[in-house]
Amino acid sequence: MARPVDVPALVAAARDGSPRAVARLISLVEDEHPALRSVMAALVPYAGHAHVIGITGSPGVGKSTSTNALVAAYRARGLRVGVLAVDPSSPFSGGALLGDRVRMQDHALDPDVYIRSMASRGHLGGLSWTTPQAIRVLDAAGCDVVLVETVGVGQSEVEVAGLADTTIVLLAPGMGDGIQAAKAGILEVGDVFVVNKADRDGADATVRDIRHMISLGDRTAPNLWRPPVVKTVAAQGIGIDEMLEAIDKHWAWLAEHGGLRERRMRRAADEIEAIAVRQLRARMGDLRSGRGVADQAGRVVDGRTDPYAAADAIVEALT
Amino acid sequence: MARPVDVPALVAAARDGSPRAVARLISLVEDEHPALRSVMAALVPYAGHAHVIGITGSPGVGKSTSTNALVAAYRARGLRVGVLAVDPSSPFSGGALLGDRVRMQDHALDPDVYIRSMASRGHLGGLSWTTPQAIRVLDAAGCDVVLVETVGVGQSEVEVAGLADTTIVLLAPGMGDGIQAAKAGILEVGDVFVVNKADRDGADATVRDIRHMISLGDRTAPNLWRPPVVKTVAAQGIGIDEMLEAIDKHWAWLAEHGGLRERRMRRAADEIEAIAVRQLRARMGDLRSGRGVADQAGRVVDGRTDPYAAADAIVEALT
Repeated sequence: MARPVDVPALVAAARDGSPRAVARLISLVEDEHPALRSVMAALVPYAGHAHVIGITGSPGVGKSTSTNALVAAYRARGLRVGVLAVDPSSPFSGGALLGDRVRMQDHALDPDVYIRSMASRGHLGGLSWTTPQAIRVLDAAGCDVVLVETVGVGQSEVEVAGLADTTIVLLAPGMGDGIQAAKAGILEVGDVFVVNKADRDGADATVRDIRHMISLGDRTAPNLWRPPVVKTVAAQGIGIDEMLEAIDKHWAWLAEHGGLRERRMRRAADEIEAIAVRQLRARMGDLRSGRGVADQAGRVVDGRTDPYAAADAIVEALT
Repeated sequence: MARPVDVPALVAAARDGSPRAVARLISLVEDEHPALRSVMAALVPYAGHAHVIGITGSPGVGKSTSTNALVAAYRARGLRVGVLAVDPSSPFSGGALLGDRVRMQDHALDPDVYIRSMASRGHLGGLSWTTPQAIRVLDAAGCDVVLVETVGVGQSEVEVAGLADTTIVLLAPGMGDGIQAAKAGILEVGDVFVVNKADRDGADATVRDIRHMISLGDRTAPNLWRPPVVKTVAAQGIGIDEMLEAIDKHWAWLAEHGGLRERRMRRAADEIEAIAVRQLRARMGDLRSGRGVADQAGRVVDGRTDPYAAADAIVEALT
């Protein structure tokens, strides 16, 4: 049995700035605790203010260093910052690959910075299931900015773009990942491109590649956001102001062109759908009298029916 | 409007060995053609005989060369072989990254080898949606062996394991991917590990790494399959017999220990569930009178409800 949770007290403490209460709320999200429903209901009046910024890129481009630099920059503005580091993890072991890293110690004792590593579980909607709820917790707890850092492996950079108001795509020179990344969909999701480690050879070529590819896309149409390309050396704090300025401009652009509501509508729709599908999946498994998924699977394997007819039987029994 | 399809004639032609009919059936799968339902129903009596073999690994380990060698080996046994090369693709452009490669020309004119490149679309259940149906087409068309080759990026190696009776994980020495791959879940999904390019430095170390990690897992329990580790130089045909032998042993083990039915049950359940969820998603979007996903998303964004209550409203309206 799950431990009972005093939701109103916990939400009040999180609103009051208790890092422990915030951590506990995010744990409820990760554990898919039964109290989540009432937590989310209790957060409704407080959410929707934070600027959600996604940061993605291949391993080695300097995501953590860049996130660290952004945290420092927002703190210098007096803003409260939340950081969610979403680690890809084995769908089998459930363990976070990078769970043992020591990260962002600069801010570990700052009461206005919440930092949380999250494992992205499962292969169906890993990010989409828990991350939006963790964002909502940080948002409702008073964070002005929520940074969501994901390792750009496979589809996660696409997913993070679905979650964020502004998506930053990090690249580094000489990693050969410019064109690959762009082909893999990264070009379509980036609102701001950052070439980090720009003191290395090939930085200008990487910038040119990205600019060229942007110019080939349909981003040049009027009224569309044209993603800026910024050079940084995050480890030395170089270019961070320019990165911040690009993010601010995108935020202003979203507000001006109605893009913010549009993105948030899409994000909420994804989240609602994920929750609804999850409920329906659970019901599918529970269906009795030969109409459950397992029974139908047996009929398919035995050559007595096809998967469409089997799915029909399940949908019919559900609806 | 979709072009009408003479399903019985097409299925009969495919059963008769017409590569064109087989190609057309797989196109129907890729296009999500309305005739798919009746195609799948028509294939029921003929499917379930093929040995489905998944081949996965990072880019550069030699998947296509190994697949090619396996095709040749199975052809030498007089078996009919189907090959599905599933390419990761941008979820935005929909284009297959590797669509232009010239592959496996050795077998291009062999009437008993069907080769098909497929794009894995979308980020929700990319492989799980179309690939099982394409496998069923090749199986029903009389293939004794169906090889499913996927680039091991992100979650796809896990997905291919869900589709295959036997999953081969390819590695290469000196790519530093041994431990990474294992951590990322590849260890749990491999039934046969193949260290290709074994004439390179470090091959024995890679074999040792894999063996060591297998010994740490719970695979050592009695009655569990203990994955063999085979060394190959696929480009020179070295080690292919050993790889084949390992695959044969796994196939025999599956038959002996009931694992085949279990795997196929799980595969069918995933497929049924994917089709059912798809139907339910479509209905969710279609819901009228303020209960559709878009309407509920608006309520969430406006702070009038939370995503759980919104999902409840949708599930209630559906069921």
